[in-house]
Amino acid sequence: LPKVTAAYLDARRREILSAASTLFAERGFAQTSMADVCAATGLSTGAVYRYFASKNDLVLAVCKSAHAQLSEDDSAGTALAELITSLFPGPDGLAHARLVTQIWGEAAVDPSLAAVVRARQTELRDAFARRIAGPAARQTAEVVLATLTGYAALVAIEAPVDHDTFHRTIMSLLDPVTVSSTVGS
Amino acid sequence: LPKVTAAYLDARRREILSAASTLFAERGFAQTSMADVCAATGLSTGAVYRYFASKNDLVLAVCKSAHAQLSEDDSAGTALAELITSLFPGPDGLAHARLVTQIWGEAAVDPSLAAVVRARQTELRDAFARRIAGPAARQTAEVVLATLTGYAALVAIEAPVDHDTFHRTIMSLLDPVTVSSTVGS
Repeated sequence: LPKVTAAYLDARRREILSAASTLFAERGFAQTSMADVCAATGLSTGAVYRYFASKNDLVLAVCKSAHAQLSEDDSAGTALAELITSLFPGPDGLAHARLVTQIWGEAAVDPSLAAVVRARQTELRDAFARRIAGPAARQTAEVVLATLTGYAALVAIEAPVDHDTFHRTIMSLLDPVTVSSTVGS
Repeated sequence: LPKVTAAYLDARRREILSAASTLFAERGFAQTSMADVCAATGLSTGAVYRYFASKNDLVLAVCKSAHAQLSEDDSAGTALAELITSLFPGPDGLAHARLVTQIWGEAAVDPSLAAVVRARQTELRDAFARRIAGPAARQTAEVVLATLTGYAALVAIEAPVDHDTFHRTIMSLLDPVTVSSTVGS
């Protein structure tokens, strides 16, 4: 029974996070209330508050879950291609881009959110840097990820961006390094 | 008299914009009220509303004024160095980065703001591209500016970013092109 309960709790939690992510991507953090999240999940207010004590907690949890994860055995090139593809035009890419871009915007004025984003970005940068050889791996990873942040912002505002060129150019940033790299873990 | 009045009106308008920019950078759009802006300027509510009919109008005006302008006769390298320097660590760079990053975040979920940011970004990209020679000038400008957007986001959340490396790497993105470029206008 405890195992079933844990799995059940976890599924509910993910259900709430998913509904909140969708609403945040569509309307923004400020325009989404806990009542909207309750309505979208079909759960009672009490049930939602059992998982997240405040909207702020929910925003923090969505930020943690929205952050990119690299697959264990991906090379730098494959990892980068996956990150870019997650932002490619289409409903999913747009929703992801809008969520990510809002997270940066909120983090710019919310110190607790800034701490979460800093930690996640450092994690992602280091995971990425481990896939790149050479002494400048960390710095290269930082610049490449910054370009992706800017790319997400362009996708989020539906700018007429040249996606293939973007992909190619970001890849070429990595190129001089990946040529000499082994696939790290 | 009409000239004096126009200059006076313009000075007042800029005074309100400047106070609003400072508050927005410190607390964020959502946490700043029109009353805060009135208090910061020392103007009456009526006076502020004469210039900006709503907080939304004020946000739009701040977004328009916050956007980078390139100096007429700057080369691509100089223009890029100026844009990077405006985001360098320190109180001014931090305030600018927080404002810019919030603007992108808000634009991600506000169509009228997205239209303003799209137009400004296209303007900046084209102004930048004119300073770069070659058929890929527009695309290079787009990628370089995206990297700057990501850099601003890192500065805004006070991430421990390696600023000199960033500067150097962004410059090198431009390098193969600027070598063969003439300074456009």
